[in-house]
Amino acid sequence: MATTLTQNDLLAILDFCTALARKAGALILEGSEAIHVNNASQDVSTEKKNSVDLVTEYDVRVEELVRSKTSKQYPAFHFIGEESYSAGNRPPLTDEPTFCVDPIDGTTNFVHGFPFVCISIGLIYKKRPVIGVIYNPFLDQLYTGLKGHGSFLSRNSQPPVKLPLGPPKPLPSISQALLAVEWGSDRFIETLRPKSNSFMKLAGDPARGVEGGKMAHSLRSMGSAALNYAMVAQGGLDLYWEIGCWPWDVCAGIVIAEEAGGLVTGSHDAFNATKASDRDFGEVTEEILTGRKYIVIRAVADTPEESGKAAQKRLIQEFYDTAEDANPQ
Amino acid sequence: MATTLTQNDLLAILDFCTALARKAGALILEGSEAIHVNNASQDVSTEKKNSVDLVTEYDVRVEELVRSKTSKQYPAFHFIGEESYSAGNRPPLTDEPTFCVDPIDGTTNFVHGFPFVCISIGLIYKKRPVIGVIYNPFLDQLYTGLKGHGSFLSRNSQPPVKLPLGPPKPLPSISQALLAVEWGSDRFIETLRPKSNSFMKLAGDPARGVEGGKMAHSLRSMGSAALNYAMVAQGGLDLYWEIGCWPWDVCAGIVIAEEAGGLVTGSHDAFNATKASDRDFGEVTEEILTGRKYIVIRAVADTPEESGKAAQKRLIQEFYDTAEDANPQ
Repeated sequence: MATTLTQNDLLAILDFCTALARKAGALILEGSEAIHVNNASQDVSTEKKNSVDLVTEYDVRVEELVRSKTSKQYPAFHFIGEESYSAGNRPPLTDEPTFCVDPIDGTTNFVHGFPFVCISIGLIYKKRPVIGVIYNPFLDQLYTGLKGHGSFLSRNSQPPVKLPLGPPKPLPSISQALLAVEWGSDRFIETLRPKSNSFMKLAGDPARGVEGGKMAHSLRSMGSAALNYAMVAQGGLDLYWEIGCWPWDVCAGIVIAEEAGGLVTGSHDAFNATKASDRDFGEVTEEILTGRKYIVIRAVADTPEESGKAAQKRLIQEFYDTAEDANPQ
Repeated sequence: MATTLTQNDLLAILDFCTALARKAGALILEGSEAIHVNNASQDVSTEKKNSVDLVTEYDVRVEELVRSKTSKQYPAFHFIGEESYSAGNRPPLTDEPTFCVDPIDGTTNFVHGFPFVCISIGLIYKKRPVIGVIYNPFLDQLYTGLKGHGSFLSRNSQPPVKLPLGPPKPLPSISQALLAVEWGSDRFIETLRPKSNSFMKLAGDPARGVEGGKMAHSLRSMGSAALNYAMVAQGGLDLYWEIGCWPWDVCAGIVIAEEAGGLVTGSHDAFNATKASDRDFGEVTEEILTGRKYIVIRAVADTPEESGKAAQKRLIQEFYDTAEDANPQ
């Protein structure tokens, strides 16, 4: 039996997710305190896949909190999270409402006390991300978005402000962009080499020996995919490129970025497949959502010469002409 | 006639610098608003050395504010800032008290609305950094340090907390570290190639094709040297390596990091020249302060096997055995 959600249902779910994100945030802060105290005497991080892929007790506790609250309030909804997915069980998406949650995004940051850490709660409905809530409890920054209703940022529990902050700006080329990239947890040479080459070309000066160099304003790496999406939505970053993360890392961020006028697509191939189409371009299909390769660009102002959406497409083309593709392990 | 500063004088100067940093912060926020509004219609950034090296009207206004206030209150003190220095006039340090100021550290972030931007005010006395004040007005985070008196963080105008946050942690190796690196504004191939090679080795898995790989927990790039120092002092980053920045970028941060138990030294060569000496190692000499190559490591806990200072030395050795040197343009 299919579940049908009205606009009022979605608004109620957004409120529920927002309150849940704040509860989860409090638990993350508690965990941070516990780790701090513990770290003084020993290294509490345990090794999973490799030394980068850290898991802590609180990662599990936050996921349990979110699972229990969501299943109690919305027992019919599905749930996608790191634990269920990485166990090898990867059921295809259905049309049913599906929570897509990263309990602690920025786990490495969390373990180190680097304050760019968040809970990321998304809702997928009819195979499309429709709700996103991202909360960084260390900086008390709450981002929310609901498809068709815009996205918002509330800082220090102040009233929410619509995103992007300030009107959209033009963006003539990648050379004028502030880009987010990440080193990620996949450290195989097959992934690192093309990433590293790409970063150097994006940063490098073509007139000073860097062939194909774009001389972008700069590259930033904060270590949280969800917060990178939020920062693109806000307008503080122009573009974020990622290879190797998972639907729960980006689901909430996709809604927040799109509702702020941002555009999301997938890999080089996904971009090439849809760029000719005005209808499909910028549509986050199931293939893109689960494809582990993502690119998001902020809202770009319309100019007399070019619509903002055309500019976004042109800039992603320019970016992908520079950056090399890779296949995450 | 030499100026002699007592401890009480230094405490008064610290208070003065703290109040001045908050004033400068308010002006930076005003500038951010103005740029936001302006950006909607045009690109206000102007090109100086290259498209990365951005200057804005507010960079000058903040420097003028700081210069006028410092010269009025302390007319005998010297002043080192970007403008005076980059004009080709590079007088050697004297024993006189010398303000060393970056009016807006993180200029690229500032122009883009990426909220990791600060005013950095340092005081050099007898050729050594002795006072540091760093204020990020976007996140309302104020870091202060005075030689011999510790360093502190005040968030959201709350009472200051001593740094590091929580007791020092152990750090067995670079493979367990969260590292800060920056792409910087020097994009010549001669600088970018060794940096990029170094980043890949720091991140890479030696068992998966990355020769000499350290598989560090991860690499972060926030785009502000001063805030990187502050984050190392706080304990949120383990180590920050930099090639190409200037004394005003790091002067305040050096005091704040050192007073939080961190250790600062210079280039590969500077490290090699002092590592054998217990007396000179970790001493920020004029050569290091003006040498444009810096490394800072957080406080490391003593263990039964090794003192924290010995661990810091061993870790910098491990880092420099991995990272390639380069000469900034």
